[in-house]
Amino acid sequence: MVSREQHDRMANAIRFLSMDAVEKAKSGHPGLPMGCADIATVLFTRFLKFDAKNPHWPDRDRFILSAGHGSMLLYSLLYLTGYEDITLDQIKNFRQLGSRTAGHPEYGHAAGIETTTGPLGQGIANSVGFALGERIMNAAFGKDLVDHYTYVLAGDGCLMEGISQEAITLAGHLKLNKLIVFWDNNDISIDGSVSLTDNTDQVARFQASGWNAMHIDGMDPEAIAYAIEAARHSDKPTLIAAKTTIGFGAPTKAGTNKAHGSPLGADEIAGARKFFGWDLPPFEVPTDVLSAWREAGQAGANARTEWEGRLAKSDKKAEFERRVSGKLVEGFDGVIADYKKKLAADKPKVATRKSSEMALEVINGFLPETIGGSADLTGSNNTKTSQTNNITPGDYGQRYVHYGIREHGMAAAMNGLSLHGGIIPYGGTFLCFSDYARPSMRLASLMGIRSIFVMTHDSIGLGEDGPTHQPVEHLAALRAIPNHHVFRPADATETAECWQVAIESEKTPSTLALTRQNLPELRTEYVAENLSSKGAYELAAAEGGEAAVTIFASGSEVEIALGARALLQGHGHPTRVVSVPCFELFDEQSADYQASTIGKAGVKVAIEAGIRQGWDRFIGTDGIFVGMTGFGASGTIEQLYPHFGITAEATAKAVEARLHK
Amino acid sequence: MVSREQHDRMANAIRFLSMDAVEKAKSGHPGLPMGCADIATVLFTRFLKFDAKNPHWPDRDRFILSAGHGSMLLYSLLYLTGYEDITLDQIKNFRQLGSRTAGHPEYGHAAGIETTTGPLGQGIANSVGFALGERIMNAAFGKDLVDHYTYVLAGDGCLMEGISQEAITLAGHLKLNKLIVFWDNNDISIDGSVSLTDNTDQVARFQASGWNAMHIDGMDPEAIAYAIEAARHSDKPTLIAAKTTIGFGAPTKAGTNKAHGSPLGADEIAGARKFFGWDLPPFEVPTDVLSAWREAGQAGANARTEWEGRLAKSDKKAEFERRVSGKLVEGFDGVIADYKKKLAADKPKVATRKSSEMALEVINGFLPETIGGSADLTGSNNTKTSQTNNITPGDYGQRYVHYGIREHGMAAAMNGLSLHGGIIPYGGTFLCFSDYARPSMRLASLMGIRSIFVMTHDSIGLGEDGPTHQPVEHLAALRAIPNHHVFRPADATETAECWQVAIESEKTPSTLALTRQNLPELRTEYVAENLSSKGAYELAAAEGGEAAVTIFASGSEVEIALGARALLQGHGHPTRVVSVPCFELFDEQSADYQASTIGKAGVKVAIEAGIRQGWDRFIGTDGIFVGMTGFGASGTIEQLYPHFGITAEATAKAVEARLHK
Repeated sequence: MVSREQHDRMANAIRFLSMDAVEKAKSGHPGLPMGCADIATVLFTRFLKFDAKNPHWPDRDRFILSAGHGSMLLYSLLYLTGYEDITLDQIKNFRQLGSRTAGHPEYGHAAGIETTTGPLGQGIANSVGFALGERIMNAAFGKDLVDHYTYVLAGDGCLMEGISQEAITLAGHLKLNKLIVFWDNNDISIDGSVSLTDNTDQVARFQASGWNAMHIDGMDPEAIAYAIEAARHSDKPTLIAAKTTIGFGAPTKAGTNKAHGSPLGADEIAGARKFFGWDLPPFEVPTDVLSAWREAGQAGANARTEWEGRLAKSDKKAEFERRVSGKLVEGFDGVIADYKKKLAADKPKVATRKSSEMALEVINGFLPETIGGSADLTGSNNTKTSQTNNITPGDYGQRYVHYGIREHGMAAAMNGLSLHGGIIPYGGTFLCFSDYARPSMRLASLMGIRSIFVMTHDSIGLGEDGPTHQPVEHLAALRAIPNHHVFRPADATETAECWQVAIESEKTPSTLALTRQNLPELRTEYVAENLSSKGAYELAAAEGGEAAVTIFASGSEVEIALGARALLQGHGHPTRVVSVPCFELFDEQSADYQASTIGKAGVKVAIEAGIRQGWDRFIGTDGIFVGMTGFGASGTIEQLYPHFGITAEATAKAVEARLHK
Repeated sequence: MVSREQHDRMANAIRFLSMDAVEKAKSGHPGLPMGCADIATVLFTRFLKFDAKNPHWPDRDRFILSAGHGSMLLYSLLYLTGYEDITLDQIKNFRQLGSRTAGHPEYGHAAGIETTTGPLGQGIANSVGFALGERIMNAAFGKDLVDHYTYVLAGDGCLMEGISQEAITLAGHLKLNKLIVFWDNNDISIDGSVSLTDNTDQVARFQASGWNAMHIDGMDPEAIAYAIEAARHSDKPTLIAAKTTIGFGAPTKAGTNKAHGSPLGADEIAGARKFFGWDLPPFEVPTDVLSAWREAGQAGANARTEWEGRLAKSDKKAEFERRVSGKLVEGFDGVIADYKKKLAADKPKVATRKSSEMALEVINGFLPETIGGSADLTGSNNTKTSQTNNITPGDYGQRYVHYGIREHGMAAAMNGLSLHGGIIPYGGTFLCFSDYARPSMRLASLMGIRSIFVMTHDSIGLGEDGPTHQPVEHLAALRAIPNHHVFRPADATETAECWQVAIESEKTPSTLALTRQNLPELRTEYVAENLSSKGAYELAAAEGGEAAVTIFASGSEVEIALGARALLQGHGHPTRVVSVPCFELFDEQSADYQASTIGKAGVKVAIEAGIRQGWDRFIGTDGIFVGMTGFGASGTIEQLYPHFGITAEATAKAVEARLHK
């Protein structure tokens, strides 16, 4: 048991490391670590189940710093408890290029950083996925192997962001009672007092959302401990509204927005040293305090050893380790190959949202780690298969999440599921509403994790719902995100191939853009190679001579490209068609492959029922683009394609005008 | 006073028009109009202040159908009350190409459609802007000219979307007590029962957010009337949780998700006709019922006439009419010209976020209609000027909104302010967090309204906050949105010019991407013409011969382009620099201007601290791009630009390698 005095000195070690690191970096956020040092100290010394020397132990408790700007709190904890990645040098190099201690916690920079945070509200929304992931894995592998808590520290900003509402109502609905959130209730935001902008009764709000919630003094160790204890015995997720003083200890800046996001300055730090009776030079931690922290960092070692013993004896050991490693069941390739053979034989004429469902039926049947879902568009996104029954508050042993009308919360929760380990999450909405989920989709890319977004109704082809629901710029906007595969398959075979790449891409999230409308099967002969994995490939060669025309197209417009080719060939113009299911994968091919695929036809055309942006890469600035230049319209698909000039006839006409020029 | 029987028949007219129109269109959402017909009838016959024959009357009450999929409710009301735009033919052409009656209500298609809805949660979030706009205009022009309510009908989806939380906490904080929201509490979402995904106590949640909230039977006219009456006397915004039956009257589909989003089918409709005793053929409304509706559509005519009398006598008439028309104060050009002269003389070396503040100081001093704000980054976005004091719950006569950490809610509220009329809203956040606001920014573009987004910290130049805060793909992603001006000015003069265009663009929203870091003044001579309004222009000509090299750049990278030009000129390579503050405006120039600006230099280069996507339009596919290919990093600006190779030296080197090839 830690004495109050020892607690205080341990907490102050966090405070001074944070102050000193921010001061040395000449930028950063000292206020949160100073205000929340008590919470962190109680949590890490008395409750958090972890082993700093084995930081990837799958059954560790997770700690998520949703208020990512307070990164020095986390880095201090990782250093103090003895994580190897975070040395004192790293602390001294806070925010410097190449250091592990970036301005905001970056997943992958160091063990102990469970997720990338900084964009507000993301951490608390990720945590719903972490906590759900724990329950799913617990249901699959039992309490002996999976039984841990997810703790979150969130700020006012996290709770003001709309995503937090999506997250907490989902967690409340699912009764994720092992999710425990501290709210750093310090009354301060960047612009000044929170009362400038908000007077929400957060405790009442969380209670209304199905949470256990309570107020405490967030700088009283016993109150903190009592609250955590109570939270651990709740049948609901818990919010601990912890009243703190931002920048606690800074003589004039404490309790003000001046302590939030800038170095305190030498005078304030000197004052804080005096206030806390902390006589040491910057970055120095008293030996006994460091020892106590290091001991805390090892307190979980026994539990881990015992867990390893249980794992060794478990008949689920191999499967558990496979799941956690992220490796697929062996033979996945063969299953997809068989399915592709079947498609080549069956030649289904279905929408790619439907062929996605068909592919998922195969994938979900083979891989138990896929967890599906949709933001209330299950029947439209075709995300549910025969293997995926509903996860409900009482039953986490299933494989489908009705995420509700919460696109952003869904994407963030999917990221949490992915980060937790053992799970490959996919979730659906309309492509147009990828905008709602975009901040989380970006973070999936930045973190390099396997979240798979199923985005149906991918063009004006959705018809009468009109321009609010018709994506036009979304393919370009998603392709703009680094490390994100945007797939737009043209038929059932390409859909299967794209799904295969998405599932196999451990470090890159994927978006599958899928049609509402039916499409013919274009790949009617079985080819073993995953042609879609090259990003673009020749689907139809020119006949009767060197190609005069190359038509590039994606998704539903490949059919139109083939129609245009038929017209042009009929008029004596040798024309080839290149299907382009994924720009990003094409960019990864050899220069030779790229050059030969693009080819040397005098006229290059691209067809996509979206904007031109990005297509110049294939057709050059003087190529012909057949697509959209503005928003769509409400009408039937039969009306809309001709209305916007996206037809085989219009394409052939534009090409011939160019050929005859 | 409407009898119960007459009320029922009037409500049933909505129900049948909706059922029949959806049935004829073979798509659409009959469930909401059938469930909410009573609410709409009570509101439009007893409370809503409007005059169907003068639908743009500025002091009308606003009705916003946040659950936009229920568009037939609104179209039915507009037809029945006698709005000229919505004839019976329009109802019969529901969802057909070219009709005013699009799948979802489209602003501009017909008077009475106050905002475009469909993407869920947007309407309720717009309404905060409408209600705030009313208070602002009331403070400026008095109760005689501005005194109206904002009514909203929202569905479960609207309330589950995170944006709703941002909206309601902002409205609660600002005590917008003339905002009255009906929640169509029908227990059904697309996937099935709401209980599949949510068990939020919405009334408690709204109360926690500073609202007056109550449960009522949403199909009992007197309960509805009583609730509206109570809401109109509340000192807080009000939620009326109205229990309804989705698809009320459909014999087997009522109360189920089968009534939500598909035609009911002939049998159900026949059953409903029987249930309601409605013997008429499709689209026919009994004469007396239509008369009663038409009378309701004229009930506000007297109030409007009286209002016009007050306006005629008001000494604020001219200014009120100017404000509402959206026209600027005469002489705005001259004020900007004078300011540009001053800049040419002063040559300030400041960040463009600072030169934006300087421009705003001039603009806000001249135009009383600008209303500023920021999502809790006031000091970083530099959005506050000497004229803009805080709007507070008690004082709407000011010009600055602390929107809180609510980027999405801010953008939607700005759209509402803009749509209300009389106001030009601008609001700030970091460019990276445009992702959070993107769905509302898209709607601003789709609607063609003047919302101005001030997005600072526009590249890796923000430094140590790292990749979570460093936009890389955001310029490309925003440029992808149709009808959206994305400005990236290079110095104080360009910033002033871009602001001028943004303010003068009544039908196009703008995003200004602005630096954190200081930049030199590049436009050191006064030029009367607004060069930025051409989108791109030659900033520095080649010297010593025809240009061998043209360097295109935007924003902070124009300085780097000029540095590269100096190096290349020094090595004997005539080099010109083209500044590109706005892609969209460049595309509007004549083909000749575009061709001459792009020029014929053998080597074309673009520099932007973002991704390449979109720049091929200037440099071709074989041009050299100096910019980002992936995410940024945490470090100082001095480290980051060289680290990512975005320097004058690296540019010159790449050019020379090409020249010597």
